[in-house]
Amino acid sequence: MTALSTIPEHVPLPAGFRATGLHCGLKSQGRPDLALILADEPVTAAAIYTQNRLVGAHVHVCRDHLLRSGGLVRAVLVNARNANCATGEKGIADARHCCDELAKRIGCPVEQVLMLSTGPIGAPLPTEKITSHLDALLGRVDDDGGMDFARAIMTTDTYPKAVHHAEYGVQVTGFAKGSGMIHPDMATMLGFLLTDATVDGASSGGVLRAVADRSFHRVTVDGDTSPNDTLLLLASGRAQSDAPATVLTATARELARHIAADGEGATRLITVVVRGAPSEQEAAHVGRVIATSPLVKTAIAGRDPNWGRILSAAGRAGVPFPAQAARVWVGTAEVYTEGVPHPEREDVAHRHLLDERDIEIGVDLAAGNAEAEVWTCDLTKDYVQINADYRS
Amino acid sequence: MTALSTIPEHVPLPAGFRATGLHCGLKSQGRPDLALILADEPVTAAAIYTQNRLVGAHVHVCRDHLLRSGGLVRAVLVNARNANCATGEKGIADARHCCDELAKRIGCPVEQVLMLSTGPIGAPLPTEKITSHLDALLGRVDDDGGMDFARAIMTTDTYPKAVHHAEYGVQVTGFAKGSGMIHPDMATMLGFLLTDATVDGASSGGVLRAVADRSFHRVTVDGDTSPNDTLLLLASGRAQSDAPATVLTATARELARHIAADGEGATRLITVVVRGAPSEQEAAHVGRVIATSPLVKTAIAGRDPNWGRILSAAGRAGVPFPAQAARVWVGTAEVYTEGVPHPEREDVAHRHLLDERDIEIGVDLAAGNAEAEVWTCDLTKDYVQINADYRS
Repeated sequence: MTALSTIPEHVPLPAGFRATGLHCGLKSQGRPDLALILADEPVTAAAIYTQNRLVGAHVHVCRDHLLRSGGLVRAVLVNARNANCATGEKGIADARHCCDELAKRIGCPVEQVLMLSTGPIGAPLPTEKITSHLDALLGRVDDDGGMDFARAIMTTDTYPKAVHHAEYGVQVTGFAKGSGMIHPDMATMLGFLLTDATVDGASSGGVLRAVADRSFHRVTVDGDTSPNDTLLLLASGRAQSDAPATVLTATARELARHIAADGEGATRLITVVVRGAPSEQEAAHVGRVIATSPLVKTAIAGRDPNWGRILSAAGRAGVPFPAQAARVWVGTAEVYTEGVPHPEREDVAHRHLLDERDIEIGVDLAAGNAEAEVWTCDLTKDYVQINADYRS
Repeated sequence: MTALSTIPEHVPLPAGFRATGLHCGLKSQGRPDLALILADEPVTAAAIYTQNRLVGAHVHVCRDHLLRSGGLVRAVLVNARNANCATGEKGIADARHCCDELAKRIGCPVEQVLMLSTGPIGAPLPTEKITSHLDALLGRVDDDGGMDFARAIMTTDTYPKAVHHAEYGVQVTGFAKGSGMIHPDMATMLGFLLTDATVDGASSGGVLRAVADRSFHRVTVDGDTSPNDTLLLLASGRAQSDAPATVLTATARELARHIAADGEGATRLITVVVRGAPSEQEAAHVGRVIATSPLVKTAIAGRDPNWGRILSAAGRAGVPFPAQAARVWVGTAEVYTEGVPHPEREDVAHRHLLDERDIEIGVDLAAGNAEAEVWTCDLTKDYVQINADYRS
């Protein structure tokens, strides 16, 4: 388990990208709600989307535009506080209209413009508020606008999520938003990976899937998958060098962990470590079941090193393992070893839960050599409060 | 949706059965924690158990005893406040010891005695407290002891769960306990179906599975499956007539709904109705996904007829359906119809959530003719409170 990174005050953008964000009237109190990424030239793009059968309008439009443009993108427009979802054909036309207005101003084909929406489901998109602010967006977009972008895409997030990696001569900057309705199979609501490296256009879908499988697909807040979840990779190729998947994955993992850390009502980032599994896939599956268990998550909220709930959640994941040979730890304290609980070690485990914000729970299944990490957060009364009152 | 039954003050037991409950020292404040069902003669029994890989000691012992007795049972001993789970070989020996002590007193083979345990995981079973109260149990067991039994098996339940049906010349009395760690694949913690009818010994496992599939397997409180879940059917055959599966199922459904109604921290029993599915199995699956969604459950806690969350949960269940042809209702108000939200109907839906304790939410998938009901409860701050503090 590595420590969670600190969000920077400024985040550099890879060569070829500019960004910004502003308030167009969707959120209250003047908070920024409209964001833009602008590429100097068309860049190679790949996207993966929610697996939900209910799909936001922007997913239809993004799919269509990327197909028609051959995976080339000049601009990405993002609005918060309105998902433009369950809005029928009108919603799709609204999203296209916004793309069209932006494309005209940039002077590029409409299919090189993408639009992403996030927020509550079911209300019509107020396109006038958006299109009337496109000139202002284009007027202020610059290479120091990363954090403005990150702030404008927030919904119930309590802090903006931006991560920067510079390694092997390439830069990767990532953004994400999301703190509720978070679950694997497009875990983040919206994620963006920008790089100045080359990502082979034909294969970038595969690369992005592999990156997501070890990052966004390993985080869960509440087991709910949003209809708007989208992860976007944009590669300008300015660095004249390939982006190693490891750098993209490291960026994406860090963003995914920030999403869990900022889970609605959360007070703890929980890293669930599963070892001794027959395969990495099974380790990740067991980890997700533990990370989704309300009983495990409320125990952590109560600072209770409740190994019984951890072992019980592992037990219902469907992966066979010998419970009498398994081990469970909380922080550095192994509280259950091969059939034997160690109540005398629970004080150390309790201190770990009490003193750290970034905590680890783990289980060794004694059923193989594979391992995986999954990230989640504790389930607190504030989660219930936030989601009982969301629309009121 | 039928109204939830009222729990009776007294519950009759089918001919051939007696029951009781008392305090043996496991719970605090003198609350009853040890319970007994005694059959006058050996009765035909069938059981189904948790699908969890971690299995309580009593499951090993019940399986073994039913195998050795050829499915005959004289007595069922139940203790609360200790699951005797993750207690290794010692735990199994402890359960056998209790059965043995009871069998000696009754004068029957040990394999005709079953023992079931429920409560927190991991502590050794205090067998001395149990065996020292066996004489008292046998001294007070009688045919009016049903409610004493129901009360003694409670853990975090706020009320005892007992249901009685007399139809077609047979009687069925059911008991259940459980209000957390509740999920399909043996949904109830402990369930008991007693009848004076005949249930063919060879086929009773199949009958019980079919009964559970339409009752206990359709209820979820928090998505967690306990390692101790057990459903037991006991048939004395005194009525000299077959028990129709419909009566057993009606009893089991009523118990299952009481479990959801008494879900930890719950203020509402939610009946999730799924119509228009390709098959009953798929309807039940979609219903379970909706019933497990923390976002749906917190919305109901907030009395918010949030059709977007209901439709979105249905969308991630993996059953294909045309979202633009679907319908969502809350109470009698259809708040989403074929792609169109009806905000003007949300007041009626809101009143339903506010005024009733027993509420209905539904979705028509427009993808077939099958339907199913699933039962759950709202997710409140009290659920978090109860489970954060459970061991402290």
